[in-house]
Amino acid sequence: MPVEKRNPIPVSEAIERVVNQEIYTKQIEVPLNESMNHILAEDMIATHEIPRFNKSPYDGFAIRSIDTNGASGEHRIRFNVIDHIGAGSVSEKEVGAFEAVRIMTGAALPEGADAVVMLEQTIEDGETFTLRKSFEHNENVSLKGEETGIGDIVLQKGQVINSGAIAVLATYGYTQVKVNEKPSVGVIATGSELLDVGDALEAGKIRNSNGPMITALSQKLGLNVVAYQIQKDDLESSIQVVTKAMDKHDIVITTGGVSVGDFDYLPQIYDALNAKVLFNKIAMRPGSVTTVAIADGKYLFGLSGNPSACYTGFELYVKPAVLHMMGANTIYPQVVQATLMEDFKKANPFTRFIRATATFNGKEMTVVPSGFNKSGAVVAIAHSNAMIMLPGGTRGYKQGHTVNVILTESQAYEMECFI
Amino acid sequence: MPVEKRNPIPVSEAIERVVNQEIYTKQIEVPLNESMNHILAEDMIATHEIPRFNKSPYDGFAIRSIDTNGASGEHRIRFNVIDHIGAGSVSEKEVGAFEAVRIMTGAALPEGADAVVMLEQTIEDGETFTLRKSFEHNENVSLKGEETGIGDIVLQKGQVINSGAIAVLATYGYTQVKVNEKPSVGVIATGSELLDVGDALEAGKIRNSNGPMITALSQKLGLNVVAYQIQKDDLESSIQVVTKAMDKHDIVITTGGVSVGDFDYLPQIYDALNAKVLFNKIAMRPGSVTTVAIADGKYLFGLSGNPSACYTGFELYVKPAVLHMMGANTIYPQVVQATLMEDFKKANPFTRFIRATATFNGKEMTVVPSGFNKSGAVVAIAHSNAMIMLPGGTRGYKQGHTVNVILTESQAYEMECFI
Repeated sequence: MPVEKRNPIPVSEAIERVVNQEIYTKQIEVPLNESMNHILAEDMIATHEIPRFNKSPYDGFAIRSIDTNGASGEHRIRFNVIDHIGAGSVSEKEVGAFEAVRIMTGAALPEGADAVVMLEQTIEDGETFTLRKSFEHNENVSLKGEETGIGDIVLQKGQVINSGAIAVLATYGYTQVKVNEKPSVGVIATGSELLDVGDALEAGKIRNSNGPMITALSQKLGLNVVAYQIQKDDLESSIQVVTKAMDKHDIVITTGGVSVGDFDYLPQIYDALNAKVLFNKIAMRPGSVTTVAIADGKYLFGLSGNPSACYTGFELYVKPAVLHMMGANTIYPQVVQATLMEDFKKANPFTRFIRATATFNGKEMTVVPSGFNKSGAVVAIAHSNAMIMLPGGTRGYKQGHTVNVILTESQAYEMECFI
Repeated sequence: MPVEKRNPIPVSEAIERVVNQEIYTKQIEVPLNESMNHILAEDMIATHEIPRFNKSPYDGFAIRSIDTNGASGEHRIRFNVIDHIGAGSVSEKEVGAFEAVRIMTGAALPEGADAVVMLEQTIEDGETFTLRKSFEHNENVSLKGEETGIGDIVLQKGQVINSGAIAVLATYGYTQVKVNEKPSVGVIATGSELLDVGDALEAGKIRNSNGPMITALSQKLGLNVVAYQIQKDDLESSIQVVTKAMDKHDIVITTGGVSVGDFDYLPQIYDALNAKVLFNKIAMRPGSVTTVAIADGKYLFGLSGNPSACYTGFELYVKPAVLHMMGANTIYPQVVQATLMEDFKKANPFTRFIRATATFNGKEMTVVPSGFNKSGAVVAIAHSNAMIMLPGGTRGYKQGHTVNVILTESQAYEMECFI
């Protein structure tokens, strides 16, 4: 059986081919409290000014600034407290000369007042107090509309809805939010060598770790995932299960079977489905045979059965596709630069991705390969938070070199208290 | 009514007081597919070697290296293919002199063979092939146990279960995982000025944004959250609702009512509950009145009603407490250094936290305050991914200064393709 010849394309081109598809999930409205981690499908505008009224940023007394002219330590000026309001209440009194209304943080300034004296700036005495400095017009006042005006765009279409966005949406009274649906994902681990997690070991076999890992990575993006039964290396039943999964999901991810090995049926499956293969060879290691195809407006990701390659394939291709389908305006992995803290001598014609631990040290980031970096080193994945990206065609890297790094997990918390 | 005098403590001491409590959630076993984002309650060990057998990292032919001695371009050596195995299968044949077994990636080396020739290194001809280079003992062989030995600790107690950890646990057949339960959280927004998100505006009132924001922040940590009705500034009913929430949750978070304002009932609520107040004044802005108390082995967080302070309080105190309760070995926010890209002139005796956008530029990070940074600038929270931390007692900062930054959201994805 001849080895199929495939043409490797650069990683950047592969990603571009993935995200240049006109494939989007449908727009829906979700309740605000279920909108977290969705992408906004439209610009959101301010439905009112913030603040809506001149208000006090402190607990204190609302006064007329003009009455404070000439105040000093030697010449304290006395005010009479005529009312007392909490946040959410509005005084019905108007502040006159040398009068004050005791006012709580967030409360609206009463008529007549144009400044707020903080409690700490006064000496109280029954229903009066004195102060020792003069105040300017609007001093200690949060002015109506100074944060946002009506109609201002406060959140952009394509923005991820995070906790801060939820606070903004709540503020402006949006109980429903228009978003693109999160894609649903079917995960099919393929390979006759695979056992279920609960199975006893057998000669020549290993347990399926890619399926649970890809399921977890999808869950991390907030997606609905269905993990299918392990699929043996059998063409007919493989076609059936992928077809079934395509009926139910926006994205079907297979792991394994993607290479040119004699039992690698994925190319034939794509043929049978009339799928348009976007690429089946990328100039990267591991995972050069990672394949992405489109059929019936669905994404088919053929990730490698090698766990490192499988992980890398998800981060590089599945994640941008998911963000693209949901209408995000920022979809690519973030690349930073870091100082390599160990020699990495393996040369390669292809771009190499190495699981690694990135650490901030002051203003700079350092990065160390995560232990064992051979194919299948699944333990290294668990102990890494980044991927080093070494361009192909080089003779390896030395400690102290600057390398490109993709951050994959949130960086580890510091062990010691910090402030 | 006199102003209560409170003694501010440093932020670091406040965090220490929070996490030095002997308060943990109970240990449970969860199914592997529900273990994501839990913290491991015990070290996990390798239940078998990886690889479990000498295996092929490539598609190719398993041979005896000794038979390749003297091979060259001028002197190609021919091998007879005696068997053909996929991953998961084991050849029953033993490889003899100038014999080979065609072998797929991940398959066990057959008896007799000690090296693998990659397909690309051969010229095939029917059931034979030739090669042009000599091979060493164990060349292109993944050796039994070279990644992990039996009993090796592969995941540490206190480690977050991420997608890589799930792959490791699946590999070793762990269907159940011992973890500390995720704490349950009750969120009570207090303040007579608050309206529900769906309510029409009224004079002097604002919609409750802190409740939804804190709920979202808790959900982001994977916690079960119950958002209670908005609580008016009324002492008796406030005591009742906090008591009720304490019965049901490990953590009760209130927002608002925490200051020394005349309608701020939280101090009295803590009194009524016989709560031990860990602190009620921190040398920080915003949120100096943030209060943390313990009652009946539960955490009570009294966050400020100011949205920026509320957010900051969650990141600085609630999050480390949650990680502590779950037994994490890394619980503190991560601090990095960045170059400030704008003057920030506001001086303050207290440590100041400023919502900001942090961006990687090559090896360095830059940071810009997120628009409006007055109290209550809720829109700025949605557009930030970091908090600048300016020590107290300074006269403000200038563009180009190096400042400490806490990363709060995952950093924004890059807009352009990157590789």
